[in-house]
Amino acid sequence: MEATTFVLFGATGDLARRKIYPALYNLFLDHKLHNSFAVIGLGRREVTDEAYQAMVERSLRDFSRREVKDTASVRSFLKAFRYNVLDVGHTEDYVKLLERVEQVETGMGSTPNRMFYLSVGPEFFEPIALNIEASGLGAAKGWKRLVIEKPFGHDLQSAQELNLTLSKAFTEEEIYRIDHYLGKPMVQELDVFQQTNPVLHALWNNRYIANVQITAAETVGVEERAGYYDHVGALRDMFQNHMLQLLMMLAIRLPKDSSADEVRFKKREVMEALEPLDEANIEASVIRGQYTAGAIKGIPVPGYRSEAGISAGSMNDTFIAARLQIDDPFWKGVPFYIRTGKRMKEKSTRIVIEFKEPLKQSSTVEEDDIPNLLVFEISPNEGITLQLKARDPRNKGKFKAVHIDFHTSSIEVPEAYENLIHDALNGDPSFFAHWNEVELSWKWVQPILNAFAGNSVPLYSYAAGSHGPAESDQLLAQDGHHWWLDAPVDEASEITLPDASNF
Amino acid sequence: MEATTFVLFGATGDLARRKIYPALYNLFLDHKLHNSFAVIGLGRREVTDEAYQAMVERSLRDFSRREVKDTASVRSFLKAFRYNVLDVGHTEDYVKLLERVEQVETGMGSTPNRMFYLSVGPEFFEPIALNIEASGLGAAKGWKRLVIEKPFGHDLQSAQELNLTLSKAFTEEEIYRIDHYLGKPMVQELDVFQQTNPVLHALWNNRYIANVQITAAETVGVEERAGYYDHVGALRDMFQNHMLQLLMMLAIRLPKDSSADEVRFKKREVMEALEPLDEANIEASVIRGQYTAGAIKGIPVPGYRSEAGISAGSMNDTFIAARLQIDDPFWKGVPFYIRTGKRMKEKSTRIVIEFKEPLKQSSTVEEDDIPNLLVFEISPNEGITLQLKARDPRNKGKFKAVHIDFHTSSIEVPEAYENLIHDALNGDPSFFAHWNEVELSWKWVQPILNAFAGNSVPLYSYAAGSHGPAESDQLLAQDGHHWWLDAPVDEASEITLPDASNF
Repeated sequence: MEATTFVLFGATGDLARRKIYPALYNLFLDHKLHNSFAVIGLGRREVTDEAYQAMVERSLRDFSRREVKDTASVRSFLKAFRYNVLDVGHTEDYVKLLERVEQVETGMGSTPNRMFYLSVGPEFFEPIALNIEASGLGAAKGWKRLVIEKPFGHDLQSAQELNLTLSKAFTEEEIYRIDHYLGKPMVQELDVFQQTNPVLHALWNNRYIANVQITAAETVGVEERAGYYDHVGALRDMFQNHMLQLLMMLAIRLPKDSSADEVRFKKREVMEALEPLDEANIEASVIRGQYTAGAIKGIPVPGYRSEAGISAGSMNDTFIAARLQIDDPFWKGVPFYIRTGKRMKEKSTRIVIEFKEPLKQSSTVEEDDIPNLLVFEISPNEGITLQLKARDPRNKGKFKAVHIDFHTSSIEVPEAYENLIHDALNGDPSFFAHWNEVELSWKWVQPILNAFAGNSVPLYSYAAGSHGPAESDQLLAQDGHHWWLDAPVDEASEITLPDASNF
Repeated sequence: MEATTFVLFGATGDLARRKIYPALYNLFLDHKLHNSFAVIGLGRREVTDEAYQAMVERSLRDFSRREVKDTASVRSFLKAFRYNVLDVGHTEDYVKLLERVEQVETGMGSTPNRMFYLSVGPEFFEPIALNIEASGLGAAKGWKRLVIEKPFGHDLQSAQELNLTLSKAFTEEEIYRIDHYLGKPMVQELDVFQQTNPVLHALWNNRYIANVQITAAETVGVEERAGYYDHVGALRDMFQNHMLQLLMMLAIRLPKDSSADEVRFKKREVMEALEPLDEANIEASVIRGQYTAGAIKGIPVPGYRSEAGISAGSMNDTFIAARLQIDDPFWKGVPFYIRTGKRMKEKSTRIVIEFKEPLKQSSTVEEDDIPNLLVFEISPNEGITLQLKARDPRNKGKFKAVHIDFHTSSIEVPEAYENLIHDALNGDPSFFAHWNEVELSWKWVQPILNAFAGNSVPLYSYAAGSHGPAESDQLLAQDGHHWWLDAPVDEASEITLPDASNF
């Protein structure tokens, strides 16, 4: 990377402290930051440089994946941090900021670049971008880049408007839209995994794959975000962005040695091939759910409508399951089942690929129902598991599931934000959401948003601590499928390694 | 199973004590022996029933996979054991044996069956079989079966002669030829593994498989068997039987729900499709080796010709490597490389399937040489490993091997002899060597035996503790391949599970 000033809006916020500072620190330890690297933290409060550095240091101690031990190296890292007070609506604050940035840049030997990281609420994206442009901050000697976090719009129209505004200050190539799921190590394997592995490449199509199941289940409820979440729901909060990105990453078929541009082009192709839903078929393909009172690991929890900050008659979706079809030669006829929800039985993000059983005869007595499954565990554990079927050595004539597993030890592996910030600093857009993807996602989701808003589809309830509404199971049962890995893998855990049983 | 008298020739021998008694005991513990089960041990020495039972008990304590704790259950097990003195050449001893057998059988409620287990040297096979027939022992009220161990002949002609003699006393269906490799749990997975797993079934052919490597490496030298081994060599001792059986088990393609007869028919087909070697191409396809002095795990060991009991100028093969081709639609063009030897670097029996890399471009800078490998570890560990290639999360732009593994904990799994004795008692011939297989194996091997005997091919030397002669590596290098997994899996062991690095 090159000499860069990292201008951080929202420097005292939760995301900055939990993710951004620890990520920068670990990049620093890995010698992945340029010597001429400066952070200018921005916030509404008056904070001295020293107090800001102390806050950053505390965040490292609290949240860094690697323990903070070496005081000398921490001090050296903290020297890069300065603080400026800034009210995002005050044009004059940007002028002062420009002075500070230029002052920092004079110390940098090479051409200085500017990265603007917007760790702030979405209502501030537009004023900040426009003020960057108006103040001259955007006229960097080197490159300038804008990093923004979700939400990118509230629906198709607002997303388009936001993008139009941003494009007045930054080109598409300068905008890095973070979808932090794309930073997760296992997700970063997905796009090339089939391409680099001939055994998977041969199987990666509708001849061999029966269906794909993408699950992101949370056990938490609305937490402190009730007021926000009640206007957003699972469809906007998870499905439109993270879940569709996972679908794109899995369904993409890349040529050998493809560039970042090709990755984006192929992801766009996946979205364009996604069969659209319209009013008539939403009810058959989409399950809207909301949790009622229940228990998480034995502890009683209230229903959604009883949560503080949620209106008593809320029709908001805390769960969504959907069947999607990709109309291209590889995936035609392979249903992609996606589900995500709060207050589910277990916290788990994973992708399960179920393979067809062409040799299976319905006439045989043996009804073992042990298909070949390839499982990508994304969080909280990371790993790849292949479920095969083998003769049970202790039970003659029977077959049993065996799992061949690979798990990473997560402490050694960079976290999502390390990967993403590093990529943004180095100008690699591969794992950021391109506007095309965002717009196509909103376009696909918009009819469902309309149906939910108009209550033209049912809102099914599910007990907290369950796997979602029964209708989510029926969605798959209609096709002769069912969700995999809801239950612990019982039989197999007997003979596989201890570590192998943790999904 | 049914009421059976288990007539054991060689009851005081090493095999009986190490393998047969512990196997019977574990079958007993697993309730896999009939209530009316009796063993009549036979040997030349005079031994009382009580002394015989004490010997059996000692063998359980020394060699049973499950610890011998419960004295009551051991005593109950030992009650089934009786001893008779017998000189295999004395016809009258068989008459006495018949009396003892009939006496035992009177206590059995149901139709008594007789299993004759020949745990004796091959020179006794023929006299025992003929005496069983002549004495009337063969006229069991129920079934009779003959279990014999290798060696089954010394070459094609002697094997044919032996079979002709045995067939005077037993039909082919009554003969159970033990190849104990076929009893190993992982070997028993091989024949159906691709058929029951659609993901493997799709890949199990010459379109996707580059080559197959079957290795059985020992670290031991000739041990106490020098006089015998020097007349046998690796080709007869390992290759003609165990290695070709492994090849058959891997290359076989079974239809769904196939019977034991079909298994045998398909194995025979594999052998018939094996391209024969003749004098002209043996040197190009077969590497004969003999170890010289070296070191095993740092401890110096003598060369083969300096071993006690080996003649100074011995041309015997202690190592053999060969390239075999199966001329059928599935395997045409896929070389099967087989190697086996004594005094090799590590003790390991395994099968490695290397998959083709159709997308690999020789022009790319990245020369990682990480093919997809499917590895069956047969001994000393048992497991299945799939080597895939993934982005290295700590080394941007690089790929690394990841291993997804499945390992059994061997204590829980029945040993080879348990499986085989159980099958023989139950009349399941699936995992025994049919005469067709034995004869075809000898036929295939005979030209090599001739070439070795006539010294028309070189005898290459290799240092004890190495991977065999350099010519064994060149055999594969000619085809653009190399032996896999000679070196420990270095990179991968860092991030895979502890147990995953043990091949």
